[in-house]
Amino acid sequence: MNSEPLRGVIFDLDNTLFDFISMKEKAVEAAAWAMVDAGLPLEVDEVRRRIFGVYRIEGIEFQSVFDTMLREVMGRVEPKILAAGIVAYRRAREAMLVPYPHTRSTLVALVRRGIKLAVVSDAPALQAWLRLCYLQIDNLFDAIVTFDDTGEAKPSPKPFQLALKQLKLRPAQTLMLGDWVERDLLGAKNLGMRTVHARYGSEVPDGEPEPLADDVIDDIGELVEIVDRWA
Amino acid sequence: MNSEPLRGVIFDLDNTLFDFISMKEKAVEAAAWAMVDAGLPLEVDEVRRRIFGVYRIEGIEFQSVFDTMLREVMGRVEPKILAAGIVAYRRAREAMLVPYPHTRSTLVALVRRGIKLAVVSDAPALQAWLRLCYLQIDNLFDAIVTFDDTGEAKPSPKPFQLALKQLKLRPAQTLMLGDWVERDLLGAKNLGMRTVHARYGSEVPDGEPEPLADDVIDDIGELVEIVDRWA
Repeated sequence: MNSEPLRGVIFDLDNTLFDFISMKEKAVEAAAWAMVDAGLPLEVDEVRRRIFGVYRIEGIEFQSVFDTMLREVMGRVEPKILAAGIVAYRRAREAMLVPYPHTRSTLVALVRRGIKLAVVSDAPALQAWLRLCYLQIDNLFDAIVTFDDTGEAKPSPKPFQLALKQLKLRPAQTLMLGDWVERDLLGAKNLGMRTVHARYGSEVPDGEPEPLADDVIDDIGELVEIVDRWA
Repeated sequence: MNSEPLRGVIFDLDNTLFDFISMKEKAVEAAAWAMVDAGLPLEVDEVRRRIFGVYRIEGIEFQSVFDTMLREVMGRVEPKILAAGIVAYRRAREAMLVPYPHTRSTLVALVRRGIKLAVVSDAPALQAWLRLCYLQIDNLFDAIVTFDDTGEAKPSPKPFQLALKQLKLRPAQTLMLGDWVERDLLGAKNLGMRTVHARYGSEVPDGEPEPLADDVIDDIGELVEIVDRWA
């Protein structure tokens, strides 16, 4: 196992620094209620099902999801219904766009220790930055690498390598924290980084520790102790 | 002068039901501060000036105003700066998207009297509906006509005629309230509607009463008395 002192931590964004799935679900539910209230002739559950159906086809970052759903259901996009959905979605999203408990205090504790921090996200640049701005944690990172910066998603080594270059650190000096084993942990492991599984962000939070993870945490606050152990 | 009893009121939206200019100014100022904070190498006043410069060329409903300004200033769009501007703009816009004082109580008072209500706006359909949803007054209207419904802007008779058709009223039975004399009041007058000038929404709120206006108000609450006089 690695013996270089730890100098940097790289974080995944969605479901590692904030609860992306929960945000999406709550925002879509609010939008579904509002669109039914505005005259969409469907049950709320059916609207929600159709919206996530569009996301499954077009990808979770697809921005015209309500237009697409309305066109499928009504054959046209009624601005009254679309606007009701957008306003409800935005309000719920903003309310839900808060970091996981202990995220800010953990990031600040690491900064105080002189640990360099980065984000490596597969989200498109604008979406990733919007989330970081809403979360009000963007200033705490020394490097933020989004999908658009390399054009490759994890577990490709490229986004990790770009973050390491910006941090001026070697893989063996860094730790990757992420919820997605096959992307976050595998990509980092392949480069020789230490890996911590953010089990709190995974859909199945219980179960066996991941073989790819050097450590597993159920609260981001546990990261400080791990960093201290490896620093 | 008209002698048919008043049965309906048609409202302009921007600067008649809410303070659109003030909303834009506050939201743009918040965005300018945030983009400078995020690294845009200009004074805040200069950023604001450039944003309104883009609006003057592209129109006040232009949605890519920050991208355009950033490309002019930096030769590229840095997602970090764009995201900071968008988040600050959205937050300030939402905070400012409230109806003028006495708007909701006035609309409800008119509905209670059996007066039919409409909106005729030159804004694009989605933008108009988003504003009405944020303002939470959309349910109080019997008809909402936006630019996209007729493809013509006031003072064209078309949007007024569509609203009248949806209200099932004749021009002589209705009153138009708006801040923009050459569009709202002229268009309504040409059709034989009564006209009231929303002087509180005009850039130069003092001065002589408009010759095109049958009445002038400095608070939307004054509308109830005028309607009672003509009902």
